[in-house]
Amino acid sequence: MTKRGMLIVLSGPSGVGKGTVRKALFDEPDTDFQYSISMTTRKPREGEKNGVDYFFVSKHQFEENIKNGEMLEYAKYVDNYYGTPLKYVNETLDSGKDVFLEIEVNGAMQVRANCPDAVFVFLTPPDLMELKHRLINRGTEEMSVINARIKKAVGEIKMMRNYDYAVVNDEVDSAVARIRTIIRSERLRVSRVMPDYEQMLLEGDE
Amino acid sequence: MTKRGMLIVLSGPSGVGKGTVRKALFDEPDTDFQYSISMTTRKPREGEKNGVDYFFVSKHQFEENIKNGEMLEYAKYVDNYYGTPLKYVNETLDSGKDVFLEIEVNGAMQVRANCPDAVFVFLTPPDLMELKHRLINRGTEEMSVINARIKKAVGEIKMMRNYDYAVVNDEVDSAVARIRTIIRSERLRVSRVMPDYEQMLLEGDE
Repeated sequence: MTKRGMLIVLSGPSGVGKGTVRKALFDEPDTDFQYSISMTTRKPREGEKNGVDYFFVSKHQFEENIKNGEMLEYAKYVDNYYGTPLKYVNETLDSGKDVFLEIEVNGAMQVRANCPDAVFVFLTPPDLMELKHRLINRGTEEMSVINARIKKAVGEIKMMRNYDYAVVNDEVDSAVARIRTIIRSERLRVSRVMPDYEQMLLEGDE
Repeated sequence: MTKRGMLIVLSGPSGVGKGTVRKALFDEPDTDFQYSISMTTRKPREGEKNGVDYFFVSKHQFEENIKNGEMLEYAKYVDNYYGTPLKYVNETLDSGKDVFLEIEVNGAMQVRANCPDAVFVFLTPPDLMELKHRLINRGTEEMSVINARIKKAVGEIKMMRNYDYAVVNDEVDSAVARIRTIIRSERLRVSRVMPDYEQMLLEGDE
């Protein structure tokens, strides 16, 4: 029997840079876990590709998936759905490979409820003022929106308590290195390697 | 207030090479945690120095320490006591530094009872996982030898269940690298870094 893979969940406040860190992580040549592409009903931004950044689907299609129990997690933000299709995740874990999700905080809590042995990594802004600057520099939001985002971020950072690890996104390379360290370390957890040893003993007994 | 340091415990079966791995770990130039020297009543071996390898004390002194509650953990092996003086560990942790213990399995279980938030690393013999292959490939062992080896392996694996991480001591350098990865990763645990963030939350709420 193949040992089931490990599920790694990266989440964090809006605007903290989850997508950038995830992309840099998967640019590393020796990355040996699978990225599960999210599904969304929002329109692609400039440069985003279907099947690469997201699976872009219609609202009708997404709601069908929810109804049929085909989403591991999902959430609705500003009239758009975001979520993780269940099938790919399960098949990859069953094949013994580790799966990496980069998702919103509401979705992460759904995964936590369903997969308590997953590894939950919370990406944090170096401080709240820096989060504010990032939002301003993006240049696409009004001040009232920015203030609402910051209030939301305070709440989201409080949600950090529900995660296993906190990684500061001070520099992308440093954040990537920390996440790689966490994954390497989690692979050495007794609870994860125990099945290997037990299997060996059973076989040794034959 | 200074954040309290982290306690790291390395243990494993007799003869697995705990001392060799610990020495190699502390030979690394960037090791940034403190080694807590054990206390023992056994005589120094050739080359061992008091205050470096062990604190060598009399049986009377050691028993006084036990009586006065000055030992974090201790055990008796073949008429000699081995243990960890509590004072140095507490003072170093209080100063915010991480402390590393390399101790026997009985002692590790005492530390686990007293310090549940310490990190427990079990060093495993390389042949524990290779047991099956060794038995098959050799094909020359007597059944009594095979059974004794399997019984020993079962006991070792049962011990492992009480630890957080399992590190195979296949090569000293690899084992050291894995332990360093675990320590770096554990420093990112939400439960350990949360005090750092509470200040940021207060500032964000103003």
